[in-house]
Amino acid sequence: MFADRLINAIDKTQNPSVIGLDPQPELLPPSLRNEHKDKYGDSIEAVTKAIVEFNRQILHELKDIIPAVKPQLAYYEQLGWQGIKAFEETIAAAKKEGYIVIADGKRNDIGSTSAAYANAFLGKTKLFEKEISAFDVDAITVNPYLGSDGVAPFIDVCNKQEKGIFILVKTSNPSSSEIQDLQVNNKPVYLHVAALIKKWETGKGDRGFSSIGAVVGATHPNEAREIRSILPKSIFLVPGYGAQGATANDTMPCFDKQGYGAIINSSRKILYAYKEMKNMNFASAARNAAEHMKNDLHTALKSADIFPW
Amino acid sequence: MFADRLINAIDKTQNPSVIGLDPQPELLPPSLRNEHKDKYGDSIEAVTKAIVEFNRQILHELKDIIPAVKPQLAYYEQLGWQGIKAFEETIAAAKKEGYIVIADGKRNDIGSTSAAYANAFLGKTKLFEKEISAFDVDAITVNPYLGSDGVAPFIDVCNKQEKGIFILVKTSNPSSSEIQDLQVNNKPVYLHVAALIKKWETGKGDRGFSSIGAVVGATHPNEAREIRSILPKSIFLVPGYGAQGATANDTMPCFDKQGYGAIINSSRKILYAYKEMKNMNFASAARNAAEHMKNDLHTALKSADIFPW
Repeated sequence: MFADRLINAIDKTQNPSVIGLDPQPELLPPSLRNEHKDKYGDSIEAVTKAIVEFNRQILHELKDIIPAVKPQLAYYEQLGWQGIKAFEETIAAAKKEGYIVIADGKRNDIGSTSAAYANAFLGKTKLFEKEISAFDVDAITVNPYLGSDGVAPFIDVCNKQEKGIFILVKTSNPSSSEIQDLQVNNKPVYLHVAALIKKWETGKGDRGFSSIGAVVGATHPNEAREIRSILPKSIFLVPGYGAQGATANDTMPCFDKQGYGAIINSSRKILYAYKEMKNMNFASAARNAAEHMKNDLHTALKSADIFPW
Repeated sequence: MFADRLINAIDKTQNPSVIGLDPQPELLPPSLRNEHKDKYGDSIEAVTKAIVEFNRQILHELKDIIPAVKPQLAYYEQLGWQGIKAFEETIAAAKKEGYIVIADGKRNDIGSTSAAYANAFLGKTKLFEKEISAFDVDAITVNPYLGSDGVAPFIDVCNKQEKGIFILVKTSNPSSSEIQDLQVNNKPVYLHVAALIKKWETGKGDRGFSSIGAVVGATHPNEAREIRSILPKSIFLVPGYGAQGATANDTMPCFDKQGYGAIINSSRKILYAYKEMKNMNFASAARNAAEHMKNDLHTALKSADIFPW
């Protein structure tokens, strides 16, 4: 099941990091931009080919030290169907290199429509008779605003296909408080969402974790501690480290007492590390930054006395 | 601006209806299924071509009586990049026939990522130097769970490109109460979201409405009345009529006292009307069902004494 696969991959790399694959055309390395512009002109084809090549080299370079990647749908959608084709090619490359793939789409809708999203990312779509898998990632992020019947179709597919979801609880952005921190019976909305996730859990794997995870921003360590106490068996997908300002120490409340149960995301700081490391090619720079992040998390886990390896 | 374009289109057709283009392969007419299966086999290509043909015929048949269509992204995503290509072809066909196009994606994320979604659907994406429009619809549905900084990039693009958004306030599904109805200072969460929308409004058009709209389920007429009183100048996109059980009378609180400011959605009851009308081809059956819906809304608007034409 998904939670076991993820925890095992974290053990194998001794690294609870996930790299966000958020390709922004203007941040791609100039060499790659120029090469593709010369070949294909200033076109969507050129940009999407450059993105896939960028992702492939990063994925190849980091495969022994990073357990999981998280492509962000928005950056592919902004290039239309060719962007979605690049998203599919990125997923295929990531799976071939052995990564766990978490699609960041924050999808949700009413029940029947949520079922179509669940099929798209985690399950199967029936054509005329044959079934296909559109994206076939390991997990996807899900928005909870519509309640149980919007989430249930994802959970069904998780159970059938051994996949996972991460439900938004407390997000990393500054204005997350506006709705998520509203007080309901002296408890913020995000703790009510955590209580719903507790209700939705459908069992845990051999490694002790559920495949119904939570998104909890590293920028809110106190809130993370509260959510962890309600959801001891959920894996937390943790954005906010690095470019958004949270430190490795800030992420510690997301882990359990054994140093498991959280995976910390970094996107721009890893992908575009080449900008800070002038004498290195972009993939080596990304590896360098990823190793730095791993060491940073190791140091924090050790000083929190929960280093598991 | 968007709100004016939408209200003018409603006036022209004397019809506050929007048709949801939610193509489910198993519900396509057998003739269309067989024709495409014979030509292209049991393949994604066959299904996506059948979907585009289905949409095109419906769009052509309804163009003089329906002002707007609402393709639901989930049903296209479940067919991978070829599904998104079919989504683009559907948008192009709809615009050519003169429809207002509202993408139903319920997108949202943190600020920088929301900007990429806003570019994808409403704005422009920069390639190397050139800018392109990926989907270029008139409006998109947006989820509010992340607060202001997730919504602001959409509003920026709305202002620049004369587009619109519809923010989820109170959704039509049974479990919408779980989060949306939580009581905060004796007021449900959905009214706090309505108050945020009020704050986000950036002015109104010649027809008196703002381009920052709200999604309000027809299945909750009392809640709609409350939301309307907080947001007198927002256009409500109203799901829940028809297949989900709400009647035309249930949708009346979504309109203002002049009978404007709401657009009522129906998807399955129109698209797949051929199933109930055995001697008609699918496009004529859809037209028949759409005319029935228009008459139904007219009757309700008249008996509520707010018929505007």
